[in-house]
Amino acid sequence: MTRLINQQFKLAARPVGMVKREDFSYEEAPVADPQDGEVLVKTLYLSLDPAMRGWMNAGKSYIRPVEIGEIMRAGGVGEVIASRNPRFQAGDFVSGTLGVQSYAVSNGKDLVKVDPKLAPLPKYLNVLGMPGMTAYFGLLDIGQPKPGETVVVSAATGAVGQIAGQIAKIKGCKAVGIAGGADKCAYAVKEFGYDSCIDYKRGPIYPGLAQSCPDGVDVYFDNVGGEILDAVLTRIRMKARIVICGAVSQYNNTTPVQGPKNYLSLLVNRARMEGMVVFDWAARYGEASLQMGQWMAEGKLKSLEDIVDGLETFPETLLKLFSGENFGKLILRVA
Amino acid sequence: MTRLINQQFKLAARPVGMVKREDFSYEEAPVADPQDGEVLVKTLYLSLDPAMRGWMNAGKSYIRPVEIGEIMRAGGVGEVIASRNPRFQAGDFVSGTLGVQSYAVSNGKDLVKVDPKLAPLPKYLNVLGMPGMTAYFGLLDIGQPKPGETVVVSAATGAVGQIAGQIAKIKGCKAVGIAGGADKCAYAVKEFGYDSCIDYKRGPIYPGLAQSCPDGVDVYFDNVGGEILDAVLTRIRMKARIVICGAVSQYNNTTPVQGPKNYLSLLVNRARMEGMVVFDWAARYGEASLQMGQWMAEGKLKSLEDIVDGLETFPETLLKLFSGENFGKLILRVA
Repeated sequence: MTRLINQQFKLAARPVGMVKREDFSYEEAPVADPQDGEVLVKTLYLSLDPAMRGWMNAGKSYIRPVEIGEIMRAGGVGEVIASRNPRFQAGDFVSGTLGVQSYAVSNGKDLVKVDPKLAPLPKYLNVLGMPGMTAYFGLLDIGQPKPGETVVVSAATGAVGQIAGQIAKIKGCKAVGIAGGADKCAYAVKEFGYDSCIDYKRGPIYPGLAQSCPDGVDVYFDNVGGEILDAVLTRIRMKARIVICGAVSQYNNTTPVQGPKNYLSLLVNRARMEGMVVFDWAARYGEASLQMGQWMAEGKLKSLEDIVDGLETFPETLLKLFSGENFGKLILRVA
Repeated sequence: MTRLINQQFKLAARPVGMVKREDFSYEEAPVADPQDGEVLVKTLYLSLDPAMRGWMNAGKSYIRPVEIGEIMRAGGVGEVIASRNPRFQAGDFVSGTLGVQSYAVSNGKDLVKVDPKLAPLPKYLNVLGMPGMTAYFGLLDIGQPKPGETVVVSAATGAVGQIAGQIAKIKGCKAVGIAGGADKCAYAVKEFGYDSCIDYKRGPIYPGLAQSCPDGVDVYFDNVGGEILDAVLTRIRMKARIVICGAVSQYNNTTPVQGPKNYLSLLVNRARMEGMVVFDWAARYGEASLQMGQWMAEGKLKSLEDIVDGLETFPETLLKLFSGENFGKLILRVA
């Protein structure tokens, strides 16, 4: 067991602006033996998410920051290869916070068993993982869409957006996506069933928004912030709900975050902007998984993964999230 | 009747930045005789409100703009001096949109009878008028304060703020005010019962906020926007509610509105920011008046008016709202 080598990325520096490779240090170390109550997990897939950028900053947020010298935090799916914890045995597949490393020793508290016969393992990092849960509860509990309403989703083909858009359609809404590039927009409409999709890389989105949402926007599921949030604010309807799920356009800023200068549209339209963090619904993940599993079985809910090979590509692969290069949920295949 | 002269302020130009006297034209005209169904009202008091600045701008808002050449819109209290409307008779006192003029001819639809024996007439423009209704429904329905929570109110001695702060106390909350100047802050604590009040004219409010709200802010009733909103956003607690009632710091901007750059605190804290316009509660004004009248009778709710004499002072008096000079609800005594 001790002959196994663990490849790890640790946080080397707090990034200034865009993340760079030098913000991480790559190290190799012998894999530790699991102690009493622990399990040793071989990492198979790691989830790469915009939220990781926030974890690299110092200071209080919804989760503690990753410390300098600490293994970079990441959710993942792996296989238990040794266990001294009665809940797990070798051969089990698990999902949890494994970190950016090829092996993880865990006390098991954070691990949940997953079944590769029910769904391919990457799905547990996508529609059946945090992105799926975020879209499900963010849209349904915070956005509260009603049949016939117009739901706009930014990062419409991203991990969370693709699910949010499809759930909006399942709930009888009109779904309008915002994504970067003609390919993503075409895919959003063809595969995910968006009624239309606005390509923000072609220029200001306002004309497309006016055309796609002639009656205004009832629910906006925001993953990006910045100018897109400001544009949507000008089109909201009375009693609109804006779900603040993320603000990927702002995460690598060296200047202060761009506040939504059109926020007084909330007043004029008696509208609401509300932040969410998926952990608050942990007790209901089962319910969401069951419902989304059923939708998948019925062919109503698809998900797309963008799988990149090799732990060693981690820093460069992570950057794809911020340049908008990823197409679907970004996942690193480790083993 | 036709010998009466009506003194009127009309909108002469759409203001650029701060309102100036030249944005209004003063005119005199004979008072028209009321036609069938109409009443003639002699204006006694006019309500001057920050919202009036917004009505002077072109463009869609929660109410149509005042047009160039039109009498400036204002709520007021007056006495019916002639009536050809069966609902009213000479000698009735009424509240409604009278406009900035010494006499108003009205079809009566907008007028509500008020009783000077129940409360002095200016109270119908303050605690028993729009400001009181705004504070009551904004705080209770949108802010939803619970006993023991911390409620922060900006423009704490202003028309809406003074009522919001006192209702917070009545509901068992800790009330922290933000106001401009030591006099207002002292008054807020002594007369309106705020637990403390932060003087924003002394410098950044963050230290005072940290001291007054050691456990954070559960409800923020925002009348001002700008830097004060941004400071409060850094102190909100989990599941906080921010009531967007106004943004008086931004109404005379020539640059774009300053968006709240700390809005991602909504995400971190699963908090909500919601706009409100009091008209939505029109069907429940009676309920609020009854409750607030009772609180006044019990000595639990006070209100302060800043009454300035003379219709001719209208433009200059209005400006007091934006320089923060008024102390209590600003009212113009016309006759």
